[in-house]
Amino acid sequence: MGGDQGTGRAFVPGHVTGLFSIHRTNDPATTGSRGAGLTLETGVTVDVLPADTTAVSLNGDAIDIDAVELVLDAMDVTATVAATTALPLGSGFGVSGATALGTALAANAAFGLGRSENDLIRVAHVAEVEAGTGLGDVVAQARGGVPLRLEPGAPPSGTLDGIPGVGTVEYLDVGSLSTPAVLEERPAQITAAGTEALDRLRERPTLERFVATSRSFAEDAGLLTEDLREIVREVEATGGSASMAMLGRTVFALGTGLSDAGYDAERTNIDRGGATLRPD
Amino acid sequence: MGGDQGTGRAFVPGHVTGLFSIHRTNDPATTGSRGAGLTLETGVTVDVLPADTTAVSLNGDAIDIDAVELVLDAMDVTATVAATTALPLGSGFGVSGATALGTALAANAAFGLGRSENDLIRVAHVAEVEAGTGLGDVVAQARGGVPLRLEPGAPPSGTLDGIPGVGTVEYLDVGSLSTPAVLEERPAQITAAGTEALDRLRERPTLERFVATSRSFAEDAGLLTEDLREIVREVEATGGSASMAMLGRTVFALGTGLSDAGYDAERTNIDRGGATLRPD
Repeated sequence: MGGDQGTGRAFVPGHVTGLFSIHRTNDPATTGSRGAGLTLETGVTVDVLPADTTAVSLNGDAIDIDAVELVLDAMDVTATVAATTALPLGSGFGVSGATALGTALAANAAFGLGRSENDLIRVAHVAEVEAGTGLGDVVAQARGGVPLRLEPGAPPSGTLDGIPGVGTVEYLDVGSLSTPAVLEERPAQITAAGTEALDRLRERPTLERFVATSRSFAEDAGLLTEDLREIVREVEATGGSASMAMLGRTVFALGTGLSDAGYDAERTNIDRGGATLRPD
Repeated sequence: MGGDQGTGRAFVPGHVTGLFSIHRTNDPATTGSRGAGLTLETGVTVDVLPADTTAVSLNGDAIDIDAVELVLDAMDVTATVAATTALPLGSGFGVSGATALGTALAANAAFGLGRSENDLIRVAHVAEVEAGTGLGDVVAQARGGVPLRLEPGAPPSGTLDGIPGVGTVEYLDVGSLSTPAVLEERPAQITAAGTEALDRLRERPTLERFVATSRSFAEDAGLLTEDLREIVREVEATGGSASMAMLGRTVFALGTGLSDAGYDAERTNIDRGGATLRPD
């Protein structure tokens, strides 16, 4: 492997997908999603320490995250991986993708592997696709900001643009939803609605248009349940704009839209810089 | 134009190019450079205020920056543009590129133009190429981190990768150098040396290899003058690594390499996130 062994620490922002379409090929590196989302300053910090056998923990508790194991296998290393986050699991914040990408970045540093950022993004994206836990979070989380996923897959296949936007975002988590089940249930309906929504968003890529197209996508794809719709409507009634995180039972709003509507919501900001190593 | 008019503020990191090759086409959007550099937390903040006639200032003094005028022309607006920076002009920090890109981002916000980030990067890159003041700074500054410019030009032509790296950078500015003069003097020698250096760096994309390939590129391209070489050698003699900023009479070092060698250097960090809007 070469290089000095030490420890590695990386931070990866959370990612809320607002709209998407599904694109599968025979190659996990070119399989992925098109769509748009918000990356969040609330994210996942991952510490990697070389060890004889691999052990993964999330907020101090042992956990199996298939994508993390696949990342370490692909990099041909074993390590203790400790992830910490304030984000809920299974609620549409891309925690598995963030942990996989953070593991790739931190392991590259800890083992002195000398790989490029695109290489590490590809390893994490492939692991997420193979684990069946995500199609577009990793590339979005690597970029930061408000990513538009124009072409599916990892670099160099996947291509991105971004909506220029900064500011506060609020979210309210009302329970978890399994990613694979929902994706398999109605892929054609989702992809038709997501393709149309992304086209409309690209005509005018602003934060306001993002939330509006996400909201109509959630309806058109049949993903917005009555309890979430009720919360979105209350935010709109107080002059805010909100939609649903794909795929989770989570409502997000620009600014303080959820607080303004009387909800006890979590508050964060749009992440500026994407995934990054952190000094130990 | 549509949208509300207000003010816009953007921040763009400085950028020190360590090695490059020159690639000219008949189209400024696909003209550019390949190479590698460091983006810096010390950068340029740009405020744009719609106005009947355009006026540009840098740190409070009126100034003509061709690339900024070309950006506003391309966006079909006139405005007061106020740029502030702690970076020296003409010393290889990409101040003109940063000001052009910051103008594009801030004008898009101020005039409510609803353009995407790739669109704004392209406008600023084309303006820099047409003004003859830069070939690769804009796309690097938009990305942040330690960009590898794999293919020349603006998106979607230009493609980037990155070296995973964070930390302190020091620089010492010993006087300015005109960009166009040096580029025109020996383009073939520069491009041969830059192509070889980038290939070697891509074999092992680490910060240490970046400085080493930059150092040998500066020698091979005939750009390293005796006074700069002397400073680089003193940093190396105290165990540090340093090279020369392209194109300026500036030495940069990883960590505190210049201070450790006894120089009164400026200190900053590798920028994490690239160009971004700022709340006013």
